[in-house]
Amino acid sequence: MADKGTTSDTGGGWTAAWELLLPTAAAPPRRRGRVLQSALREAVRSGRIAAGTRLPSSRELAADLGVSRGLVTDAYEQLTAEGYLRTARGAGTWVSATVRASAPPGDRERETPGDDPGSGFLPGTPDLSLFPRAAWSAAHRRALARLPHSGLGYPDPRGLRELRVAVAGLLSRRRGVVADPECVVICSGVAQAMTLLGLALGELGHRAMAVESPGSPEHTALLTAAGMAAVPVPLDAEGLDPAALAASGARAAQLTPSHQFPSGIAYSARRRSELLDWARAADGLLIEDDYDGDFRYDRAPVGALQGLDPARVAYAGSVSKSLAPGLRLGWLVVPGRLVARVVERKRTMDLGNPALDQALLAEFITRGDYDRQLRRCQRAYRERRDVLVAALGERFPGTEVSGIAAGLHIIARLPRRYGPERAFLERAARAGVGLRPLAAFGGDPARDGRVGLVMGYAHLPPARIVRAVGLLADAAHGE
Amino acid sequence: MADKGTTSDTGGGWTAAWELLLPTAAAPPRRRGRVLQSALREAVRSGRIAAGTRLPSSRELAADLGVSRGLVTDAYEQLTAEGYLRTARGAGTWVSATVRASAPPGDRERETPGDDPGSGFLPGTPDLSLFPRAAWSAAHRRALARLPHSGLGYPDPRGLRELRVAVAGLLSRRRGVVADPECVVICSGVAQAMTLLGLALGELGHRAMAVESPGSPEHTALLTAAGMAAVPVPLDAEGLDPAALAASGARAAQLTPSHQFPSGIAYSARRRSELLDWARAADGLLIEDDYDGDFRYDRAPVGALQGLDPARVAYAGSVSKSLAPGLRLGWLVVPGRLVARVVERKRTMDLGNPALDQALLAEFITRGDYDRQLRRCQRAYRERRDVLVAALGERFPGTEVSGIAAGLHIIARLPRRYGPERAFLERAARAGVGLRPLAAFGGDPARDGRVGLVMGYAHLPPARIVRAVGLLADAAHGE
Repeated sequence: MADKGTTSDTGGGWTAAWELLLPTAAAPPRRRGRVLQSALREAVRSGRIAAGTRLPSSRELAADLGVSRGLVTDAYEQLTAEGYLRTARGAGTWVSATVRASAPPGDRERETPGDDPGSGFLPGTPDLSLFPRAAWSAAHRRALARLPHSGLGYPDPRGLRELRVAVAGLLSRRRGVVADPECVVICSGVAQAMTLLGLALGELGHRAMAVESPGSPEHTALLTAAGMAAVPVPLDAEGLDPAALAASGARAAQLTPSHQFPSGIAYSARRRSELLDWARAADGLLIEDDYDGDFRYDRAPVGALQGLDPARVAYAGSVSKSLAPGLRLGWLVVPGRLVARVVERKRTMDLGNPALDQALLAEFITRGDYDRQLRRCQRAYRERRDVLVAALGERFPGTEVSGIAAGLHIIARLPRRYGPERAFLERAARAGVGLRPLAAFGGDPARDGRVGLVMGYAHLPPARIVRAVGLLADAAHGE
Repeated sequence: MADKGTTSDTGGGWTAAWELLLPTAAAPPRRRGRVLQSALREAVRSGRIAAGTRLPSSRELAADLGVSRGLVTDAYEQLTAEGYLRTARGAGTWVSATVRASAPPGDRERETPGDDPGSGFLPGTPDLSLFPRAAWSAAHRRALARLPHSGLGYPDPRGLRELRVAVAGLLSRRRGVVADPECVVICSGVAQAMTLLGLALGELGHRAMAVESPGSPEHTALLTAAGMAAVPVPLDAEGLDPAALAASGARAAQLTPSHQFPSGIAYSARRRSELLDWARAADGLLIEDDYDGDFRYDRAPVGALQGLDPARVAYAGSVSKSLAPGLRLGWLVVPGRLVARVVERKRTMDLGNPALDQALLAEFITRGDYDRQLRRCQRAYRERRDVLVAALGERFPGTEVSGIAAGLHIIARLPRRYGPERAFLERAARAGVGLRPLAAFGGDPARDGRVGLVMGYAHLPPARIVRAVGLLADAAHGE
C-alpha cells in the first residue's frame, strides 16, 4: 500500500508535484522538516497541486519519501495552520480551495494583471495567453538541432551574429531603423538597454540624462542605479520641450517618440527635427525607447526617429510586448562610436545573452513566425481598444480619449462630474478595478479638474473590458 | 529553372542557409547589396554553408530572392575577393575550402577550443558535444506546456521560485551548501554573480576585494568594472595565505577552495577554518567560486566552504561546466543580510533571468536529468584525465602532475630539460598545440626552472589527447 502507485492514485496534480518533494530525503536530517514544508508549500502555491486535490496519508507519504512519519505530520499541520491545506477527521488532508495558484505574496509576479480578473486596467502588460507556445516550441527544437556545438560555448557579448542580422532586417523593414548588424547589441530588454547606455555615457563624462515628464518612473530608477541623474523635462503637445531640454544641462535624453508613455502622443515631425538639431549642436544623444512601436492601428506606422540620424539616436526595443516580458530579449542599436563601450559593459554584466534563446529568436524571425505573431496581436489589440473606447463612451459620456492610434494603453479624461480624482480612484479600488492615474507618472499636461487615467487594455479580453467598465460606472455612481 | 527547387539541389547546407538571405529583398533598395553580402558572409562563416558547397548561379539566386542579378554578381565578387568564395569559369561559384566555420575574427567564440583540433589544452571549456540535446529539448517542451500564462510575465528578479527550490535542494544534496530558497538568487553565471556582489559590497563601503594569486584574470576585470579594486593575495600549499589577506586591507575575498584555479589544490581544513575566523573577526565575507565543484573523481567531494558558515560565505556556481556556458544560467547563495541589495542590483541589471529558461532548468533538475548529465560528464572526464596523465608519463617522463582529483584541468610541471618555458611554448605553438603556462595566471608558487602548464582536457576526446601530447613531444625534441 505504500508504493508510489498509491500516492499517484490521489490525482494527476499530485503526480506532477511529486518530484518537488524528492529533495527532502536527500537533505541533512535536521533540515528535512523544513525542506519538506517548503517544497509542499511551493507545490501548492505554484498550482502544481491543484486546489481540492487530496494528499496521500502521512503514513503513505513518509514511506514513499523514506522519511519519518512525524516529519510529514508536522508538515501537514504547519501548512494547515498557514491555510494551504485543510484537514477533517476521516476525510484526510486536501489542498485548500482558497489558495490561488500564484507566486508567493510580495513577489513581483503578483503585479502581473493578466491572470487576475480584478486587476483592471493597469498598463504595461500584453495578453500572455497570445504567446505562440506551439511555434515557440517548434523553433526551439529546430534551433537546437541546428546549432553547432561551438554555439553552446561562451556567447559573443554583442549577441549571436545570426540574430543581429535578423533583428537588423526586422527593424529596417518594420520601423525604418538604419541598422548595421555590427551596431546591434542583443540585450535582455529595454531596461538593460537603458542601464548599458547609462554606464557607457557615464564613462564619457555624462552625469545626467533628460527623461520625459510625465514618463516611466522605472527608467529613472535604472538611471540612478547606473550612477546617472535623471532630469525630468516637460512635454507639450508635440513632444519633449526643446527649450527646457537645452536648459536642463543634460547631453542625452530618453524619449518615446512613436507613442509617448504615458500620454500617447506621437512626436510631431517638426519636434523630431528640432530635437535632432539640439543633439547635433550639443554633441548629444537621443535615446529612443520604442517600447510599443510594433502596434499601430489606424494609420501607417510612424518610422523610428533613429532612421533620421543614426549617429545621434540610440534605438532600443524588445519582444516584451510582442511575445512576452519573461523572455528577457531585446536589442539596442547604437551609433558606431558607442558600440565598443556598450558591448564591454554588456560583457562585464553577464557575458552576453543566452545563446540558445538567441538562436531560437533568430529562427523565429527569419521563418516569418514573428511577423505572424505581430499580426495576430495587432488584430486582437485593435479590437480591445475599440471595445474600451466604445464602453467608455457609453458608460462615461463626455469622456475624451487620446493616444489611441497605437500601443497597449489609452489616455481617458473623464468629465469633472466624476471627480475629484482621488475619490474616484478610491471608489474604483473598492470595486476591485485597478486603475492608474496619469498623475502617477510625474505630471499631467492637461490638469483641469478632470479625472485623467492611463488605461491598459491589451491584457483583457473584450468581455472583461466591458464588465470592468461597467463596474467602474456602477462605482462612480455610488452604487 | 529559377524556382526554389533549383537552389536546394546544390546541397543541404545551402537549404539551411537560405532563409538567412531572405531579409535582402525586404531591405530598402539602397541597402540590399550590403544586406545580401553580409548575410552570405555570415552563412559561410557560421558554417551554415559548408566549405565546398556550390552556390546557385547569380541568375537563379536573383530570381529566388526577387532582387536584381547585378546585386548577386556584386556580392559573389566581393566575397570572392575576401576569400570566402571561389569562382572558376564554367564551374560556377563555391565556398572556399580555406574558410573554417567559426565566429568572425576577433570574436570571443574563436577562443572556444572544442571545435578546433589544433587548439590543444586551453583550460575552461567542457565538451560541448556532451550537451544533452534531446533531454533539454524535451524539458523545454514540458516546461512550456506547464508554465501558467502569468509565468511569461516579468520575472521575479531573484529567480523563479521553483528553480530556487530545486537549486537549493541540489546544492544541499551535492555540495553541502546550506541553501534556503529565500537566499538563492538566480543569475546568468559566476561572472554576473561576481559583478552583483562587487556592486552590493560597494554600497556597503567596500572598496577592494582580495583575489587569489595565481587566479582568474577575468574576475579581476569584472571587479574593476564594478568599481572595486582587486588585490592579489598569494597562495601557499593549503590555500590563500591568511596573514597576507589580513594585511591586504580588503574585507572580502574571492576563493576557489574546492579546486583552486589554476593550481588545482583543495584548501585544507585548517585553512578553511582560519579564513572563516578572519571573516568573523573582520566583519568580512568570503566568496566561494565553485566553478567546477561538480567534478571530483577519486575521493569523496570536499563539501562547500559555505556549509561551514553561511553567514560569512557567499557561494556561486553555474551550469557552464556541467551543461554549457552558452546557457548563461547560474546561482548565488548569499547571507540573508545581503539578499535585498543583491536582488536590487540584479533587478536594475536585467530585471531577472529569462523565465522559461528557469522553468526548464527547474524541470531538468527535479526530474533527475541534471544528475544523469553530471554522472555522464564525470565518467567521460575521468577517462580523459587518466589518458592525459598516462600520455604525459609516457612522452614526458619525470613530469609531475597535480590538481588531478577534480575539475577539468590539471597542472603539469615538465622536467627542466624541456625548458626554458618560453622556448617550449614557442615550439608548441608552431606545432599547433594551444597551451597556457601557469605563469599566465599571475604567479607560480613553485617556480623552479621547470615548465609549468595549466592543461584543460575535458573538451578533448581521448584519441585527440594522445595525438596532441604526441605532437608536443615531437616538437619538444625538435622534430
